[in-house]
Amino acid sequence: MLSEFLLSEMNRLGANDALPLHRQLYEALRRAMLDGKLGAGERLPSSRDLAQDLQLSRNTVVAAINQLSVEGYLASRVGSGTYVNDSVPRISPGRNGQRTAGWASAVPPGRLSARGLALTSRFCATDLEVQPFTPGIADFSAFPLTLWQRLQNKHWRMTYPDMLDYNTSGGYAPLRRAIADYLRVFRSVHLEADQVIVTTGTQQSLELCARLLADHGDTVWVEDPAYWGAAKAFMASGLAIHPVPVDDQGICPDMGDDTYPPKLIYVTPSHQYPTGAVMSLPRRHQLLANARRHGAWVLEDDYDSEYRFSGPPISSLEGLDTDGRVLYMGTFSKVMYPGLKLGYLVVPKTLVDAFKQAHYDLNRPGQMPVQAALAEFIEMGHFASALRRARQNYAERRQCLLEALKPVLSDARVGPSISGAEQGLHLCLRLPAHTDDKALAQRIAQQGLTVRALSAYCLQRSDLKGLVIGYGYAPLADIRRCGPLLAAAVQRELDAAAA
Amino acid sequence: MLSEFLLSEMNRLGANDALPLHRQLYEALRRAMLDGKLGAGERLPSSRDLAQDLQLSRNTVVAAINQLSVEGYLASRVGSGTYVNDSVPRISPGRNGQRTAGWASAVPPGRLSARGLALTSRFCATDLEVQPFTPGIADFSAFPLTLWQRLQNKHWRMTYPDMLDYNTSGGYAPLRRAIADYLRVFRSVHLEADQVIVTTGTQQSLELCARLLADHGDTVWVEDPAYWGAAKAFMASGLAIHPVPVDDQGICPDMGDDTYPPKLIYVTPSHQYPTGAVMSLPRRHQLLANARRHGAWVLEDDYDSEYRFSGPPISSLEGLDTDGRVLYMGTFSKVMYPGLKLGYLVVPKTLVDAFKQAHYDLNRPGQMPVQAALAEFIEMGHFASALRRARQNYAERRQCLLEALKPVLSDARVGPSISGAEQGLHLCLRLPAHTDDKALAQRIAQQGLTVRALSAYCLQRSDLKGLVIGYGYAPLADIRRCGPLLAAAVQRELDAAAA
Repeated sequence: MLSEFLLSEMNRLGANDALPLHRQLYEALRRAMLDGKLGAGERLPSSRDLAQDLQLSRNTVVAAINQLSVEGYLASRVGSGTYVNDSVPRISPGRNGQRTAGWASAVPPGRLSARGLALTSRFCATDLEVQPFTPGIADFSAFPLTLWQRLQNKHWRMTYPDMLDYNTSGGYAPLRRAIADYLRVFRSVHLEADQVIVTTGTQQSLELCARLLADHGDTVWVEDPAYWGAAKAFMASGLAIHPVPVDDQGICPDMGDDTYPPKLIYVTPSHQYPTGAVMSLPRRHQLLANARRHGAWVLEDDYDSEYRFSGPPISSLEGLDTDGRVLYMGTFSKVMYPGLKLGYLVVPKTLVDAFKQAHYDLNRPGQMPVQAALAEFIEMGHFASALRRARQNYAERRQCLLEALKPVLSDARVGPSISGAEQGLHLCLRLPAHTDDKALAQRIAQQGLTVRALSAYCLQRSDLKGLVIGYGYAPLADIRRCGPLLAAAVQRELDAAAA
Repeated sequence: MLSEFLLSEMNRLGANDALPLHRQLYEALRRAMLDGKLGAGERLPSSRDLAQDLQLSRNTVVAAINQLSVEGYLASRVGSGTYVNDSVPRISPGRNGQRTAGWASAVPPGRLSARGLALTSRFCATDLEVQPFTPGIADFSAFPLTLWQRLQNKHWRMTYPDMLDYNTSGGYAPLRRAIADYLRVFRSVHLEADQVIVTTGTQQSLELCARLLADHGDTVWVEDPAYWGAAKAFMASGLAIHPVPVDDQGICPDMGDDTYPPKLIYVTPSHQYPTGAVMSLPRRHQLLANARRHGAWVLEDDYDSEYRFSGPPISSLEGLDTDGRVLYMGTFSKVMYPGLKLGYLVVPKTLVDAFKQAHYDLNRPGQMPVQAALAEFIEMGHFASALRRARQNYAERRQCLLEALKPVLSDARVGPSISGAEQGLHLCLRLPAHTDDKALAQRIAQQGLTVRALSAYCLQRSDLKGLVIGYGYAPLADIRRCGPLLAAAVQRELDAAAA
């Protein structure tokens, strides 16, 4: 009986985890399909019946079913109900930990352009299952949804036709002011509100810069290892990517090859992605001097500056810039939620008009009621409160992860170390150069944990090995439970290497 | 005295705003620090003292101080009190303006890339004032906002964390199904829901196609005259634009120069933008044959197919395609509202995986609650109702405009004519080849009416003159009032030319 299977699965899940009910049901239904208890093409009981059988609220059932529909497991046919999709992969028990969707690797060769092939063949962000320790992911379950919904509502009620149109002025003016106030105070960015362009996030910010400030074939210096999303944006815009090594003081601008003079230099100075290195002050001056010498623009991606846990606060690189060659960008996805799709780009005054115009012509910005709600969310202090709560949450998780990793660090034979734990939502566990970190990450994945190999972020160099470990996504209980598993897996690797 | 400053600031804030007391105090303290009245490292009076001095409850004072601590303005030292953080930037009134001004002027002008200059120097969509007859703009004042807000609310209430995240599957599954159902029935598109990629609109759809299917320097055939937005997207992606003339049967594919074989062919077959020509069936077959011969992809932009007023319904070009080389795109901006930022791209099955992956990697799609609301809006028939009402509105406006233009058309001396009035939200008043249509459009603008010169849409040719006149934006009363003014202005031009 389906409902019996679901109930027992949910009991099992509920015992180990603090998963919400709809998520338990989602997992149970997913398992039923993967195990073949619900076959392809089979009709699901109605949400009403399921709710009754499982003694759950209808909303809970609908949420689980919606999620499975989103993910392609289920399909609704109008007037006839919900069915298991034909394409659901049946997974034999052994493959449990493997990826569910499978499509990322299935991209057929052939009729894409060379650029299209390049864009789809490397650095695919979708092929990781989100599990404890997945880096780059925040936990937005604590986000004050009800309050946010109330604010959105208010601005929808107040909306007037112009707010439903595209926006030509770089964003909703009060939001640009709120962003400018925030950056001025917390990030020591020198700016006026008019220099703020509201974008749909860092990808759009990067592409605007790449297109307006560089030509096809121009060189962009990119940190090695690097944030893949940035590399993709530059590839898509036809730029030649020149990797410049990162050490524990950040990018080494003098190691950039002058035979490939940069038009753009892309950096994450306050928390290098993914090593977590903080760019030192001398290095910052050196970078700016180098940029000046080459007549290059500097793109400063301050992607997780909101979460600083220890060490002195670090001002922006932009704040050191005296000749207006730094473009500064950030995102709301880490404090609000990713699907909000709002970020910002601060451009030098001389570029404001060109960027506004091109942003309109290329992107047709919209979503003004949401921008208005966000402006009020910030102005009324809700952003600061949400940030405070999140920071506290993440601080606890980070501490718990650091505790769990302690035994590994005490292994003096091979000298693993941690970098980048002062800020952000991930840290980097550095491992000896002979470690096969990709294989290690795969072994760890078999335990239902997702970490990324540091070497997977490297563009060119092969000397960096380690694990990039996120503590943003999983709740404290999961980190407490899974941290020792992770540490044990790493320890086994170290022992094997020493043997 | 600090407390005097705080009190006066709070009075000022309290007079204008309905800010709660703790928020007033927070603002006042923040101001005191930014103005240097509370210097870096300075010790704050105890919360007890502050409460007494300001005659506030201690809780109010503690709330304000906590907030400032979270935001990094203040730091507590155990047993010794609360201090202003060293990192708080002091903003002195004089330096503020000076620094930014000097800094801005130090940036040499003209530092956009060649691509940036090209993207911002031509075809700027922001330089038109929206007034009666502005083409390309719908009237969303009649859009059922309250209903839409209720639906959005419902889906926000039902939302679960995954809906707040980025989406990797090409869009919210029920929305993709609803779009597929709509296109299958109304546009004779051959598709399954999985071929639908939900985008932020046509610009994003075009860029995905340009990047994945063409390389830098590849040729795209573009209709001449053309939709500027498309030309910009292709320019931004490094494609060589090869204009192919349009006549009253649409694009003339045999006039495309085979020495510039296309990788992409971009067309608006059901209502050519801006001439309004409907591509004839023989021309459609010819276009597909030509595309096959060149191994080119065809991009079909069906931008306003929802509004067909007369003549037989026209199926999509995609529906004639037998070898999967047509990519079909549309937008919700014309029936819903532009700022919604939702459109769709239908890709051949072989490309689905690559497009989903690249869409995620390049654009990080989100906004899932809005997608869910739209899916229900369509499924429940609200989209069809809104469309029906809008179509009726626009039909009346169109009729009114046609009536107003009648006297001009009867001028047999020079033979003006109207094209493209069967569909969409604009029509094209064709004028004799010797007309200076740009000057005419400027004269009309002086009367508070905005029309565009047809020649302004031409990429290469110089034989087309006329006015592109929108009837989507202005209410019927305005069209009734302004139509005769517009007609009179045209008549004066014709008379002057004949004299």
